[in-house]
Amino acid sequence: MLATTLTLSLPPWVRDMDLPAPLAHLTDRMEFVLDLAMRNVDRGTGGPFAAAVFEQDSGRLISVGVNRVVPENTSLAHAEVLAIGLAQSTLRTYDLGGPSRPRLQLVSSSQMCAMCLGAVVWSGVGEVAYSTTSGDVIATLGFDEGPTPPDYSHQLALRGISVVAGVMRDQGLEVLRCYVTSGGIVYNAHH
Amino acid sequence: MLATTLTLSLPPWVRDMDLPAPLAHLTDRMEFVLDLAMRNVDRGTGGPFAAAVFEQDSGRLISVGVNRVVPENTSLAHAEVLAIGLAQSTLRTYDLGGPSRPRLQLVSSSQMCAMCLGAVVWSGVGEVAYSTTSGDVIATLGFDEGPTPPDYSHQLALRGISVVAGVMRDQGLEVLRCYVTSGGIVYNAHH
Repeated sequence: MLATTLTLSLPPWVRDMDLPAPLAHLTDRMEFVLDLAMRNVDRGTGGPFAAAVFEQDSGRLISVGVNRVVPENTSLAHAEVLAIGLAQSTLRTYDLGGPSRPRLQLVSSSQMCAMCLGAVVWSGVGEVAYSTTSGDVIATLGFDEGPTPPDYSHQLALRGISVVAGVMRDQGLEVLRCYVTSGGIVYNAHH
Repeated sequence: MLATTLTLSLPPWVRDMDLPAPLAHLTDRMEFVLDLAMRNVDRGTGGPFAAAVFEQDSGRLISVGVNRVVPENTSLAHAEVLAIGLAQSTLRTYDLGGPSRPRLQLVSSSQMCAMCLGAVVWSGVGEVAYSTTSGDVIATLGFDEGPTPPDYSHQLALRGISVVAGVMRDQGLEVLRCYVTSGGIVYNAHH
């Protein structure tokens, strides 16, 4: 019989987290996200990446995601994919940018790979902010970031999505380095 | 409390389908996939897109996916995402191209959008075959296909993934036109 249900789960420690009060500043939001990424490394529950969806103005947290590729056995389980999917299921909409909704912001520990860039475009978020760049990820970990377009930020701008790059990059780099030190798996599917 | 589990489901009629014997020829595989896409339109269970993962040599079917964006309330639920995720959960691996595995082929009713192109690259499939092009999808439905790179097929070739384009394109176009006639929703998240 064919499988008909796909389930992607965050690690159990996410359920036990204290939720932050609304975070007014982007640096506070990024600190929260980098802490998630570092916990994911420390606890061995996935790759060194995390993301969260916030209401842009109020700073209210809607959803979080961490990389779960190896533990969940699927290459789809990037942090941004989980954060977007869980925001959409929480708000019961396939379009986070629908009319009469507050503008939402995706805060991610690293720049989106090709898959997550596409996922962001369909998601309806109005802004993305990230810490380390794809160049940092490639240089530190050797992950391939996939076939992104050369005019990456312009492609987002064309669709009304603004980008804030390099937020707390030194702290973001520290998370990637800790993953290397911990001996974490670097998976690249092309052989 | 934060949501921690994301579930994506295929429509109930997929469970009741008779599974095909191994399909030796690509046209037979595409006919099967286009039939899935047409059923998804006819039954009103999602967008006019379907995909399936086959063992390339034997033609054994591993998984299927159909577009479930509107019914499942998530922009992630493209046919290719479901087919890839369900193949990986069925075979219990995040890398469908791992050593000692038969080469797998993704057969899709339409060319992959930006998100699904990235998903294919991480999935480990060795070949993709599609019917209608992104140009067909844009011309017929007005869907934005997202920020794909200008050297699309080359980016796949660089990663060892071969591409067969335009398989049974006339029949593929017919599925897209039926969706238009049925008054199906065309969602584009950029406002």
